[in-house]
Amino acid sequence: MKRNELKKLITKILIKHKLSKNHANICADALINAELVGAHSHGLSRLKMYCDRINKKVINPKPKIKIKKISHSISQIDANNSIGFVAADIGIKQAIQNTKKTGIGLVAIKNSGHYGLSGYYAEKAVKKNLIVFCFTNAPPAIAPHGARKSLFGTNPICFGTPTSSKIPFILDTSVSVINRGKIRVAARTGKKIPEGVALDKFGKPTTDAKKALAGVQLPIAGFRGSGLAWMVDILSGVFTGGNHGGKVKDPFDDFSGPQNIGHLFIVMKPNLFVGNYSERIKENIKRIKRLPKIKGVKEILYPGQSKLRKYKKNLNKKINIPTNIAGDLKKLNA
Amino acid sequence: MKRNELKKLITKILIKHKLSKNHANICADALINAELVGAHSHGLSRLKMYCDRINKKVINPKPKIKIKKISHSISQIDANNSIGFVAADIGIKQAIQNTKKTGIGLVAIKNSGHYGLSGYYAEKAVKKNLIVFCFTNAPPAIAPHGARKSLFGTNPICFGTPTSSKIPFILDTSVSVINRGKIRVAARTGKKIPEGVALDKFGKPTTDAKKALAGVQLPIAGFRGSGLAWMVDILSGVFTGGNHGGKVKDPFDDFSGPQNIGHLFIVMKPNLFVGNYSERIKENIKRIKRLPKIKGVKEILYPGQSKLRKYKKNLNKKINIPTNIAGDLKKLNA
Repeated sequence: MKRNELKKLITKILIKHKLSKNHANICADALINAELVGAHSHGLSRLKMYCDRINKKVINPKPKIKIKKISHSISQIDANNSIGFVAADIGIKQAIQNTKKTGIGLVAIKNSGHYGLSGYYAEKAVKKNLIVFCFTNAPPAIAPHGARKSLFGTNPICFGTPTSSKIPFILDTSVSVINRGKIRVAARTGKKIPEGVALDKFGKPTTDAKKALAGVQLPIAGFRGSGLAWMVDILSGVFTGGNHGGKVKDPFDDFSGPQNIGHLFIVMKPNLFVGNYSERIKENIKRIKRLPKIKGVKEILYPGQSKLRKYKKNLNKKINIPTNIAGDLKKLNA
Repeated sequence: MKRNELKKLITKILIKHKLSKNHANICADALINAELVGAHSHGLSRLKMYCDRINKKVINPKPKIKIKKISHSISQIDANNSIGFVAADIGIKQAIQNTKKTGIGLVAIKNSGHYGLSGYYAEKAVKKNLIVFCFTNAPPAIAPHGARKSLFGTNPICFGTPTSSKIPFILDTSVSVINRGKIRVAARTGKKIPEGVALDKFGKPTTDAKKALAGVQLPIAGFRGSGLAWMVDILSGVFTGGNHGGKVKDPFDDFSGPQNIGHLFIVMKPNLFVGNYSERIKENIKRIKRLPKIKGVKEILYPGQSKLRKYKKNLNKKINIPTNIAGDLKKLNA
């Protein structure tokens, strides 16, 4: 489907589900962006879930989002169980505004939901020539180091900075070794998964994808990644007033209440301490890119480069919609 | 040697090397703390190096440290090539002060040197009931993803928060898989190193410790860890005005000039958005600690717990000084 047509369709579906036109547009842009950068698990495949949650009254389609100014730098947002995209869009804009005034902006959001890709919001700040951290937590997916039960979400660490080129530096990395989707594919195709990725249900390391699905996924780098996941849970959950410590509900499976996900944005002006940030970051990237490469590597890429390449490649192509999702769209639009 | 005696000796040595009594005390406390938490590579084993750098005029023992107030929240420090401990001590205190006023403090330091353990400074903020990030870069030690030459330092990510108990949550994790010291030990004892830790000099993965020493160490989790190391280099180097992109000199080997390391501290009040942070973090930790454990694990520890246990165990014991270091101390005090 053409991008514009798809946007019209998504917007129409969300308006049918009681979102305002403005909020529906915000959501459609975020979902289409996920498709364009190749993050299909964060795109169209989630639209039905969002609509289901609205129908079951665990997402509020007409939220009264409250923005509380704590200082010129700091704001708190109560998203009133809005769809996550809308809360995050308002939140990052507020953080950008605060930063323009004071050099640093801090925005905490509570009572939100799954907001898609952190990198999408980071990019909004970077396009305004700002440095940014985005933190969000998520439903249990990986086990804390030493535990044999999942509790932390994939809890991404996301950092962005302008680069002086049109390609922003956007690190958006989950703290799980591989995503659950890949394990599901391995289980279906009978392939083994790498060592160190998962434990079986008894807490023993396994490379058997089926056993891994019944067990738990592991964080990257053992206690280091577990600590990073814990940090993200504290920043986006404990600190903001959101759910934390394994209490964020799975959006696909658990309709017993809103998710109350928390997000935290920290934004800074790049020229606070140096007059020539743009030249400095350019030089930094240049030095790293010209290092000798290992065999088979053509170019050392910085985080965000390959995503932007996919985006550009896909921008003027039709968006491919798998049959099952096309069926969902049809039903949702009925 | 008794702790007090050792502190007197270190202070005396540093005063001999032209530091003020106050600065010598700051350094002695940091070095002894590293010994007490078991981070010997950041303790006494570095004292000779610091003195050598003073003698060769690449550390300034009488720095004129300038603190520039950018706003009530933001300060910039030019450490004038001071020993890193002193710059970081002043920096974290300034960040704490700014935060008490405004809720958030941001301090960038340039023209500093190796400051020891990030967690040591994080703890200072946490003891004042604050949340903190500490970033610093370091001399080349690990290869960016795709490169076969080291460029990033071990670039720790450090985050601390009060916990409502006397044991702070201090995550202080380098982005290298294992430290170089462990590879050196494996090379000496003829043991293999784990897969995924290092490349040989041709850029091929190796488990041979000797080949690894001639090659490069890898970041944790491939491109994820490489991205995190890059982020830390940008935050502590590019952003602050410090050296970056592989230009931080090795303090042991390269006396051709000062290190000009950068540090960045971000500090926040925990109760900005919730009235009961202390209860929330207590509940968070409780939930994680009571998860079912994998076989052989007695307790799920949060970052910082095991370090504090070592510290307490060692606090009233004599500090063991290896023969070669005792020899150094004797010479430095001569």
